[in-house]
Amino acid sequence: MTVLYLEDFTPGQRFAGGTRIRIESERAKAFAAEFDPQPFHLDEGAASVSIFRGLAASGWHTAAVTMRLLVETEFQPAGGIVGAGFEELRWPTPVRPGDELRVEGEVLEVRPSKSRPEQGVVKMRTSTFNQWGEAVQVSVGNLIVQRRPS
Amino acid sequence: MTVLYLEDFTPGQRFAGGTRIRIESERAKAFAAEFDPQPFHLDEGAASVSIFRGLAASGWHTAAVTMRLLVETEFQPAGGIVGAGFEELRWPTPVRPGDELRVEGEVLEVRPSKSRPEQGVVKMRTSTFNQWGEAVQVSVGNLIVQRRPS
Repeated sequence: MTVLYLEDFTPGQRFAGGTRIRIESERAKAFAAEFDPQPFHLDEGAASVSIFRGLAASGWHTAAVTMRLLVETEFQPAGGIVGAGFEELRWPTPVRPGDELRVEGEVLEVRPSKSRPEQGVVKMRTSTFNQWGEAVQVSVGNLIVQRRPS
Repeated sequence: MTVLYLEDFTPGQRFAGGTRIRIESERAKAFAAEFDPQPFHLDEGAASVSIFRGLAASGWHTAAVTMRLLVETEFQPAGGIVGAGFEELRWPTPVRPGDELRVEGEVLEVRPSKSRPEQGVVKMRTSTFNQWGEAVQVSVGNLIVQRRPS
């Protein structure tokens, strides 16, 4: 796996992960019990009459799984994947138990830092898809990436 | 606990949670091993020479714990806390093992939906603080909230 520096990124670059992660019902409920204990994430009956019309994984579970998928792609910045923050994060489609998720990314912008000459920022859109090709999460985030040592 | 409808929210309202959650080292490492397996989240030695200069919890762990803290506040919209999406999500300060986190929120905007008369959107800033009062996460998100049945 090649480690990438800021100079290796250009807007328009895309990458896709080969890994798929299946969201198991029991894991989704356990994640929700620990972090997002709301009826529509915990219980099929309560979920069926909620806004989700059926059990849905917590969006934070989807976000966490997306991070895992991202770590397993060829997108490997020197110093690791370090998020400075997101300007967009949304969940267009609920994640259901049994869904298999995969991730795709696109570089939107590359900016050297003015105050820190050894690093810069890569703005990236990351999209997470289910097995039907529906986007279940879309985010636009800024990652801190090291410049190539001179 | 009173259930709140869209009509119960006004810009400027603030709420704070009484709950604190302590981030234990083993839980932070286990979360990272499952969802964000990067050296600075897994191993003290590797973390000490990383951008974080010491073990840091995954930002997604902080986000998930923030959701748990939010569920335990008096902020209880009818239909649950359902995020339509975020316009901002950032982690200004790393979360360290042993940190105790708490949450505060502020309503920024309240908008009835044009296309769905039974619901609306509450834009809210949520800030997560450590035991030193430093913000470890700040987010601005849009929540789907039901209107009071007429």
